[in-house]
Amino acid sequence: MLVVMAADATGAQIEAVAEKIRQLGYAPHVIPATTRTVIAVTGNRGPEGKEILEMMPGVIEVMRITPAYRLVSRESKPDPTVIPVAGTRIGGGFTIIAGPCSVENETMIMRTAEQLMRLGVRLMRGGAYKPRTSPYSFQGLGEEGLRLLEKARAKTGIGIVTEVMDEKTADRIEAVADMLQVGTRNMQNYPLLRRLSRSTKPVLLKRGMAATLEEWLMAAEYLVSGGNPHVVLCERGVRTFADHTRSLLDLSAIPVIKRLSHLPIVVDPSHGTGKAEYVPAMSRAALAAGADGLLIEVHPNPREALSDGVQSLDLDAFAALYESLKAVAQALNVPLL
Amino acid sequence: MLVVMAADATGAQIEAVAEKIRQLGYAPHVIPATTRTVIAVTGNRGPEGKEILEMMPGVIEVMRITPAYRLVSRESKPDPTVIPVAGTRIGGGFTIIAGPCSVENETMIMRTAEQLMRLGVRLMRGGAYKPRTSPYSFQGLGEEGLRLLEKARAKTGIGIVTEVMDEKTADRIEAVADMLQVGTRNMQNYPLLRRLSRSTKPVLLKRGMAATLEEWLMAAEYLVSGGNPHVVLCERGVRTFADHTRSLLDLSAIPVIKRLSHLPIVVDPSHGTGKAEYVPAMSRAALAAGADGLLIEVHPNPREALSDGVQSLDLDAFAALYESLKAVAQALNVPLL
Amino acid sequence: MLVVMAADATGAQIEAVAEKIRQLGYAPHVIPATTRTVIAVTGNRGPEGKEILEMMPGVIEVMRITPAYRLVSRESKPDPTVIPVAGTRIGGGFTIIAGPCSVENETMIMRTAEQLMRLGVRLMRGGAYKPRTSPYSFQGLGEEGLRLLEKARAKTGIGIVTEVMDEKTADRIEAVADMLQVGTRNMQNYPLLRRLSRSTKPVLLKRGMAATLEEWLMAAEYLVSGGNPHVVLCERGVRTFADHTRSLLDLSAIPVIKRLSHLPIVVDPSHGTGKAEYVPAMSRAALAAGADGLLIEVHPNPREALSDGVQSLDLDAFAALYESLKAVAQALNVPLL
Amino acid sequence: MLVVMAADATGAQIEAVAEKIRQLGYAPHVIPATTRTVIAVTGNRGPEGKEILEMMPGVIEVMRITPAYRLVSRESKPDPTVIPVAGTRIGGGFTIIAGPCSVENETMIMRTAEQLMRLGVRLMRGGAYKPRTSPYSFQGLGEEGLRLLEKARAKTGIGIVTEVMDEKTADRIEAVADMLQVGTRNMQNYPLLRRLSRSTKPVLLKRGMAATLEEWLMAAEYLVSGGNPHVVLCERGVRTFADHTRSLLDLSAIPVIKRLSHLPIVVDPSHGTGKAEYVPAMSRAALAAGADGLLIEVHPNPREALSDGVQSLDLDAFAALYESLKAVAQALNVPLL
Repeated sequence: MLVVMAADATGAQIEAVAEKIRQLGYAPHVIPATTRTVIAVTGNRGPEGKEILEMMPGVIEVMRITPAYRLVSRESKPDPTVIPVAGTRIGGGFTIIAGPCSVENETMIMRTAEQLMRLGVRLMRGGAYKPRTSPYSFQGLGEEGLRLLEKARAKTGIGIVTEVMDEKTADRIEAVADMLQVGTRNMQNYPLLRRLSRSTKPVLLKRGMAATLEEWLMAAEYLVSGGNPHVVLCERGVRTFADHTRSLLDLSAIPVIKRLSHLPIVVDPSHGTGKAEYVPAMSRAALAAGADGLLIEVHPNPREALSDGVQSLDLDAFAALYESLKAVAQALNVPLL
Repeated sequence: MLVVMAADATGAQIEAVAEKIRQLGYAPHVIPATTRTVIAVTGNRGPEGKEILEMMPGVIEVMRITPAYRLVSRESKPDPTVIPVAGTRIGGGFTIIAGPCSVENETMIMRTAEQLMRLGVRLMRGGAYKPRTSPYSFQGLGEEGLRLLEKARAKTGIGIVTEVMDEKTADRIEAVADMLQVGTRNMQNYPLLRRLSRSTKPVLLKRGMAATLEEWLMAAEYLVSGGNPHVVLCERGVRTFADHTRSLLDLSAIPVIKRLSHLPIVVDPSHGTGKAEYVPAMSRAALAAGADGLLIEVHPNPREALSDGVQSLDLDAFAALYESLKAVAQALNVPLL
Repeated sequence: MLVVMAADATGAQIEAVAEKIRQLGYAPHVIPATTRTVIAVTGNRGPEGKEILEMMPGVIEVMRITPAYRLVSRESKPDPTVIPVAGTRIGGGFTIIAGPCSVENETMIMRTAEQLMRLGVRLMRGGAYKPRTSPYSFQGLGEEGLRLLEKARAKTGIGIVTEVMDEKTADRIEAVADMLQVGTRNMQNYPLLRRLSRSTKPVLLKRGMAATLEEWLMAAEYLVSGGNPHVVLCERGVRTFADHTRSLLDLSAIPVIKRLSHLPIVVDPSHGTGKAEYVPAMSRAALAAGADGLLIEVHPNPREALSDGVQSLDLDAFAALYESLKAVAQALNVPLL
Repeated sequence: MLVVMAADATGAQIEAVAEKIRQLGYAPHVIPATTRTVIAVTGNRGPEGKEILEMMPGVIEVMRITPAYRLVSRESKPDPTVIPVAGTRIGGGFTIIAGPCSVENETMIMRTAEQLMRLGVRLMRGGAYKPRTSPYSFQGLGEEGLRLLEKARAKTGIGIVTEVMDEKTADRIEAVADMLQVGTRNMQNYPLLRRLSRSTKPVLLKRGMAATLEEWLMAAEYLVSGGNPHVVLCERGVRTFADHTRSLLDLSAIPVIKRLSHLPIVVDPSHGTGKAEYVPAMSRAALAAGADGLLIEVHPNPREALSDGVQSLDLDAFAALYESLKAVAQALNVPLL
């Protein structure tokens, strides 16, 4: 930490801050700058004491030097993490998770699973419990949806990725899913994160709609520090003034996350744009930017979808996109997993 | 709803959209505009069918005319709602809820409760369960904190406002609190909202950090449509590019919420600015803008606070602020409750 | 400045950075932290050399300690600046600048000027040259508008505040106006700022729609460092995801600017909200938050206005607002100038 | 336009709005909806009258149906526009404009021009007049910089792209440059846009830091409606809460602009990220998202650059990026121009 003193801070104020730093068990280093004195703090392991120093007379600001996340940082583990899921993996290649926003009935989920497996896609997304902005909207099939997902896996062998919204349903969903999805609205639902940190199943952690990368990595730190090292980050767009897409898909998060953390990162271009016609361009861009994969909405009949149809590709459009992703992956020497 | 057709939409496409509207059980009204044809939809009760229409060939956009919230809208209930809480009320005056970020020990919470009651403040905030960005930060005293809050009320008669983070602890918190706080990170935690919609205690619903007013009112709609009409909205700042305060306190939300909804709205200038020195100015501004009250952090000794000390007023600073609020309230003919 | 080194930076990299700091003519102070070494830089007057250091191997980040603005900072001049304008002043009280968005014809501008003077308002705003988003919108009366403003002053004695958009028209506008307005879109129009820094007339500098306070103060620094010390800042709302008002009026900028700078700050609630019905609430809130005044749109007949009628108060509504501002100002002991 | 009436609007209010629409010369179509009556307006060519209708009693909102830009819209000209510049073109392929932030001296600009031509890059960027946030920063070589750019073109044949900041220097820059750049801070500098709309040279119009796509296209409309059809849009990142890069590069603007407009769009990954290490990933992503080219900072010796060195690639890094772009372009069947 660095304590920045006001230009008119007195010698007594500077000494008081140094003394408080010593009381906290740290070492102060006073650097008499041209305009503002700075006191460097060494010996601390985290930001403890930061707030106390901020309130002392003559102090303008206390800056952190080391990020608050530890276990998920690239500095703590230079090698990229690879997450095994249902016979495939995320990390070290390009992995596609595709499927409908929500499970609607047996026919559609079976047809989707079969078609995905035929193309070589090994992981299917599909919501049984859905967070919806309106209490009047379709909220998912619940337990019935889980049963259909189990059936689809039993018949096709496809791995299942589905959302967990609360602790109450976590046990049952954990039994069914190969990977547990935490939605954007729950990125900072700490009781939920704690529960999933005790799971043996990998977690797909979506970025909060207004989360900085540090906050996102702190949410991942909840999972990893609680005992679950299998975390995949998912960029899904952030909220800004821009109104031409539903969210603003932040592809620059990909190279920056790669620098800050060892965890893999995938991109959700469907929620990120909110419109199927923009999904292929942004999918290819995500791959070219270095993402480890996609979470993408595919529906056998988007026009009849009960939720998010506008942003879903139909199976033919998805197959065409898949071909172009293969070409780009090859040009970039990235294995399509 | 209004369906906007592309400039080059064909007559067949327009007719197909009209037919689909009829199939949905609504009535289409085709308006041949100069450049783009528009089809007005009447007879619908909500946005059902919007997505299906959006995907039809020739359609550019489907606009909603009526907001998605119903029960919380001013149109559905023109009179402002007044919420009774622990012998006082929120709505129809200016109500202050003050207290520490978290309950830390018996001495501090008793001293705060006593001082608040002496000043005439009837509601005390104080967290027992705290959502913290870092898993390594102090997470609240939990059950022990609840016992201290109970004790403070028993001794002083002050009403208790405290946060609920999950369903697991909801029963116990409900038994202790006079008002249940939903934090900014949980504004769209729908299982939690559903649980609290079945409570007899009023709910203080903080605005999500990146929530539009419509999303916020939709979260309130979850509570009210589930059976709990006692909802108070709390503006606490939103996330933007601006970096001079922790959040950007949106005081314009006050007059706009008053227009859109009958629910009362209070302001949290402590989280809204993140710095105690800016709290008095923004508290007075909130009152002048028409807020129904404040949720404000007060601590007997901010420099020793375990959380959020930087943004807490000490008891003397709070008493001084209270005096100036009285003067402004009088000038505006607003009763200080 | 502070140079933050990576956790795995080598001794040679640290020494190379220290050597480069010496070459730049500054002094390095190496502080061996627990995880990351930090090198404090003293002896520099500004951020010169920051970019060079940022690119050196092993460097993660270079942090500035002292803000880049100097002359406008509160540290350089602790006393608040008071700006004399047309017989009144801005600073040390509450000053209202009112009038139409644009000068439309003689009748309306005369009627407005007379009514304002009758109420005691000494400064009138009114645009002759207007920046408009669309090339097809009314662009202002230009020279004819300036003549009408001159006439209004000659007849009523009211001071004139009007916008300057380019150097070409600056001489003529400078001859007419008592105060020169720089619009939000021109906050970083540096040739224009340089031109106005050589003016003897005070400048009203609107905040850019996405400007941080530091950037805004840097724009003011262009004016002051170029020779014009008479700068009034004007908060007019910023651009965010929020869509309930045209911009998000940032009243927290008021107490923060008061801390960072000695310049006065006024608020434009008309552009800040975009809707006349929200203007009174936000005007009172600006006063209560400590603003030095208002820039407010008033029009004798808003429904016939050629621009911004939706956000203009009519003369009666303005007179009513003026009364309530008087009451609040009195409660706060602020003189209404 | 569509006029939305309040749920409790009276018949007289509805009739008054309809009558006003007729007075404006348009046709009203009253649609009695379930909750809110809507009045469609036909016969209008633009938003004229919108504000007047918004202020009428009983009116909640007036919605526009047709975007305000006309000449630059895809509806007005379905074929994509191709802009010829200095022997190459922008549109219908992938065109790279590379070079330093500012012209610093003869050696560096010559070395850059020669190396770019050797690689096959035909357009060089380089600023002679620079907009800088601080009045104390290097402001460009001015006329001397223009002379060096002329010399570089004379010797190597490379096309020159350079920034125009005001009308005063526009004639001289126009004589030197092959393409005129309008910076992000000047996107809504209307006197400048009008001046450039009368130029025979193509214009590179950067997106404003907080501009919606509609505002950006309106700025382009200023240029095209004034007589200059040769406009290239340049996405350079927008301002949001995200702090991991200098701006948030909005690659989703690419497919959306392609849908809304016939103008070509290039991407500036250097300003968009602010850090050289993220430029290659975002350059490849821009290509994969369908951009028509790049505007990219390249410097023979970034560590000695007078401005923006941190975000500049050196010549070797640029050559390596160029190779990978070739591979991706080939995979996508996009000609590298």
